[in-house]
Amino acid sequence: MNTIGHHFRLTTFGESHGAAIGGVIDGCPSQLKLDFDFIDSELQRRKTAQSATGSQRVESDKIEWLSGLLDGITLGTPIAFLVRNEDAKPADYEALKDVYRPSHADFTYEQKYGLRDWRGGGRASARTTLPIVVAGAIAKQILADKSIVVKAETVFMGDAEQARKEGDTVGGIVECRITGVPAGLGEPMFGKFSAELAHAMFSLPAVKGFEMGDGFALAKMKGSEANDTFINMDARRESRVNITTLTNHSGGIQGGITNGNDVVFRVAFKPIPSIAKPQQTVNRAGERCEIAIGGRHDVCALPRALVLVEAMAALVTLDAILIR
Amino acid sequence: MNTIGHHFRLTTFGESHGAAIGGVIDGCPSQLKLDFDFIDSELQRRKTAQSATGSQRVESDKIEWLSGLLDGITLGTPIAFLVRNEDAKPADYEALKDVYRPSHADFTYEQKYGLRDWRGGGRASARTTLPIVVAGAIAKQILADKSIVVKAETVFMGDAEQARKEGDTVGGIVECRITGVPAGLGEPMFGKFSAELAHAMFSLPAVKGFEMGDGFALAKMKGSEANDTFINMDARRESRVNITTLTNHSGGIQGGITNGNDVVFRVAFKPIPSIAKPQQTVNRAGERCEIAIGGRHDVCALPRALVLVEAMAALVTLDAILIR
Amino acid sequence: MNTIGHHFRLTTFGESHGAAIGGVIDGCPSQLKLDFDFIDSELQRRKTAQSATGSQRVESDKIEWLSGLLDGITLGTPIAFLVRNEDAKPADYEALKDVYRPSHADFTYEQKYGLRDWRGGGRASARTTLPIVVAGAIAKQILADKSIVVKAETVFMGDAEQARKEGDTVGGIVECRITGVPAGLGEPMFGKFSAELAHAMFSLPAVKGFEMGDGFALAKMKGSEANDTFINMDARRESRVNITTLTNHSGGIQGGITNGNDVVFRVAFKPIPSIAKPQQTVNRAGERCEIAIGGRHDVCALPRALVLVEAMAALVTLDAILIR
Amino acid sequence: MNTIGHHFRLTTFGESHGAAIGGVIDGCPSQLKLDFDFIDSELQRRKTAQSATGSQRVESDKIEWLSGLLDGITLGTPIAFLVRNEDAKPADYEALKDVYRPSHADFTYEQKYGLRDWRGGGRASARTTLPIVVAGAIAKQILADKSIVVKAETVFMGDAEQARKEGDTVGGIVECRITGVPAGLGEPMFGKFSAELAHAMFSLPAVKGFEMGDGFALAKMKGSEANDTFINMDARRESRVNITTLTNHSGGIQGGITNGNDVVFRVAFKPIPSIAKPQQTVNRAGERCEIAIGGRHDVCALPRALVLVEAMAALVTLDAILIR
Repeated sequence: MNTIGHHFRLTTFGESHGAAIGGVIDGCPSQLKLDFDFIDSELQRRKTAQSATGSQRVESDKIEWLSGLLDGITLGTPIAFLVRNEDAKPADYEALKDVYRPSHADFTYEQKYGLRDWRGGGRASARTTLPIVVAGAIAKQILADKSIVVKAETVFMGDAEQARKEGDTVGGIVECRITGVPAGLGEPMFGKFSAELAHAMFSLPAVKGFEMGDGFALAKMKGSEANDTFINMDARRESRVNITTLTNHSGGIQGGITNGNDVVFRVAFKPIPSIAKPQQTVNRAGERCEIAIGGRHDVCALPRALVLVEAMAALVTLDAILIR
Repeated sequence: MNTIGHHFRLTTFGESHGAAIGGVIDGCPSQLKLDFDFIDSELQRRKTAQSATGSQRVESDKIEWLSGLLDGITLGTPIAFLVRNEDAKPADYEALKDVYRPSHADFTYEQKYGLRDWRGGGRASARTTLPIVVAGAIAKQILADKSIVVKAETVFMGDAEQARKEGDTVGGIVECRITGVPAGLGEPMFGKFSAELAHAMFSLPAVKGFEMGDGFALAKMKGSEANDTFINMDARRESRVNITTLTNHSGGIQGGITNGNDVVFRVAFKPIPSIAKPQQTVNRAGERCEIAIGGRHDVCALPRALVLVEAMAALVTLDAILIR
Repeated sequence: MNTIGHHFRLTTFGESHGAAIGGVIDGCPSQLKLDFDFIDSELQRRKTAQSATGSQRVESDKIEWLSGLLDGITLGTPIAFLVRNEDAKPADYEALKDVYRPSHADFTYEQKYGLRDWRGGGRASARTTLPIVVAGAIAKQILADKSIVVKAETVFMGDAEQARKEGDTVGGIVECRITGVPAGLGEPMFGKFSAELAHAMFSLPAVKGFEMGDGFALAKMKGSEANDTFINMDARRESRVNITTLTNHSGGIQGGITNGNDVVFRVAFKPIPSIAKPQQTVNRAGERCEIAIGGRHDVCALPRALVLVEAMAALVTLDAILIR
Repeated sequence: MNTIGHHFRLTTFGESHGAAIGGVIDGCPSQLKLDFDFIDSELQRRKTAQSATGSQRVESDKIEWLSGLLDGITLGTPIAFLVRNEDAKPADYEALKDVYRPSHADFTYEQKYGLRDWRGGGRASARTTLPIVVAGAIAKQILADKSIVVKAETVFMGDAEQARKEGDTVGGIVECRITGVPAGLGEPMFGKFSAELAHAMFSLPAVKGFEMGDGFALAKMKGSEANDTFINMDARRESRVNITTLTNHSGGIQGGITNGNDVVFRVAFKPIPSIAKPQQTVNRAGERCEIAIGGRHDVCALPRALVLVEAMAALVTLDAILIR
């Protein structure tokens, strides 16, 4: 269950404070010249400590490419890569070893596995999204050759500066738009483009909501308001048929399949649960205790989340193209 | 891509006006006595023509069980079943054969497959959800033996009676609660319980939004408001540890894994796109035309959607239990 | 685990004496006109009671097509079909209900599932290969359009007429050749064309051996004898390169990938375990007993096995083409 | 297609002369203390240059563990590992860059991918079996706790010393026995224990034949000779039923499911195709040329193949147990 994708498949590995974080991409087309600078620039977007909202962990995030390449060209064989964890400070977490941080995965991982890597969130750390960004950057490069562009932006974010002062954190909403998507992508019944996107977004940490097009607002519209009228963009020229929709309430998808208009969706991120404010919780023995989470944590996931949302959207789109 | 689930797998088949609709369930535990009355009652909940909002298509929806059973007991082999399409009136759709109905899957299916079954929406018809209800009913029965209950209710619905008069349709929002779920279900990284639910719900027709717990509202909270405090319910008795959360903003899931509290989520349904009001659209030749969709259509998907949401939730929950 | 294939996927269902045997084909290309006569003729080849070696069960084997077709053209949606079990005589098997027939799956199914359908072998009956023949016939039709032909023949069979007289059965060896296969099919590491063929053949009842090209004989050769020399068939014409191998010890596959030469393999079938001769065995209570299996059984699987081997080979080949 | 297994899944990566060879194991149970010495000793069995038949490549084969472990205990998260390629001498292969070595995968990889890593066989090198041995060693350890033991031995090998003198190579046959296997493992229809074994063995380089139990010899027996008689081992003690078979022609499997007796199978390996003797072949331009493959090659795969066969058998067995 650490693999995503059907044709373009990413398997990820690594814990926050383990030896390394990395991934294996299987199904990448051969004879592709990778743009390593672009991949690095995407990682830079994800990196922490870059802004007022970011954490202070300092990592060089230098990628070691292990396989699948010959002189920078893809061989069609698995592309494995890793990034070492350099600034791991497990001692910071020693005090939290036996305590369940509220709204973190400490308790649920222990319930599932009988133990957990308590160092920096272990496998549940946001650091484990790094391989997604690497694979997403490769996917974006392939999509760009097909004139498909994935772009996310923040449409809502809480007041981060105020929250930082209060020892608190904030959430936000990201909107993503995929332009240039051909009509006909996605698979009924259980491989709908929208369902694959929903699954991919909910695989990101802190995601609590997903909507396509007008989403929840559609529930409050009438059919006559919500329907997207088909038009022929080349109507004047008799010889061609180039159909699209006048409005895009559907977010570019009908019956789970792309209609050629922009694919548009929004993702809700909850506030980061690591807050400096004191909180009540319990430890492994079930005893009540109070914690104040120090350390190097973000105030908001959003600045970093943009590249994650784009990466996942790129993975889903490329996969749908390769399935087709 | 017509299969859902990892262990408890449902493959569905059938078009709205083809010979039959049905499914094959693979991975159902053996030695289980099926409650056929319960399955029929669930189908009855899904059935059309039952209320003010429903369509007038009349189907007996009688299930033929083809395999996997001996004297009503599951053999552990695939359980295949079908329901005949009796009240199919393809002639009703003849006029729409070459026209793309707004916000329907007519255009996208043609783009994908090069042709489509134009009779009643073909594979994209809501009738194809029937096998989901059958499989969901079996899953519910198995879950009930483990004291797990899935229950959906309408939390918002547009004014259906008014819309019907206007030749229009409405959407709505369904909330679903799964009680009795053990902690530790769901698989990181890409098999999170929440991601599987999101995928399952977006596999249903007309779904445009999905949120876990407080969902989109969480994006506007601070961490100190959004976090769920852990408590030990058996704190007074020294010998036992029985941890849960005091609040449930997370909807019972942290890090993608269930925490033992109720799993709660909401699903947004857009209005049914088949409206009697005249609409502009284009035909296959790209020519503009006006349509008014008559026939036997629902005004709102919601009364029928409740059992669909429950069925999907039951499939995801049972699958997660069997994976575990 | 009742599904085979990655792109062209067949899910089968049914027990020997249940209501029906059938399958669902997912991933069949759309816009294909099916040749139903050819499918029926392939079923005829599989049918029992046709020759001196066959059993006496009489089935019309009439296929009901349930979905995925419009006017005989594939829609790209799942193609479901079934065949009713008409000549089911469960009473014939009543006496064997609690007895484990030697080298049958009675005992192993009970160990796995806790119960078994004792009527005619249930899910383990050779009758369950029927859907494989149907799907294989469709695959063959698609392959034929690409000039790929699958042909099996018997290269060894025991003395069936003598065995029948003695109340005994015989086995045999089938050789299959796939001509017209393009070079480059098959996936390293764990999706090798040879590995997929081996898996498919061992999914057939009574198969106990599989070898590619010279197979086991290669183990006794030297490298200089076993190697296949590459040649350029268009060597005289300067402008073209058309490489193949002079010999074909490898059976058309190197490194798990087809080299463009014929794919050649052999499959060993054990004798049918249902013999009229008295045999010692035990019943469910562990008590010794003697049985003589009457009923309508084949003396040898081979005449029927030819079409099964071809069907499976066609499924594997088409799947590899669609993956590519 | 670089992943094997359903629950205990191994994804491998790496080319012979790339940066590293490695793998990711997903689905390994948590809370298991790994025996690293045993894993190293298994790698030692696989290592080259160890005997008269082996190649002269010298690799330390030191495993770097990247993830999934805390203090040597499995976390239940993906276990990633790699081994650096130290003694890579790509220059040895420069001369063969444009030549297709007979019965190697040079030609087929180029046909499939449009290019190939010509350095030491690239992805098709036997060096890529290293991660299989690592994963197999972990699987063996888990199986040993359940008293299941996998043991392979050479039952035929050509005259290696004579072949070396002649610049030639030899093949051989390995027999493998899995003892302690519980009855009831394996999944009909398309996940038979025997089919999974066949698939796994044909995923190993140079494998050309596979047979269960008496295998090809069964094709020449009569039913009365081939059938395995069931007996109750605890017949004298009235209270218990402990059924097994008196003979084991079936190799411990009936209907694709284990019967509790030893699982026995044989695997045929062709001679290694890299021979020092001059051979005719063609280059990429289709021109005839003669090659004599020097370098550091084995004379026979068998001494190293034993641990590979065992590793694959262990992976299949553990996977079947976890599925159950």
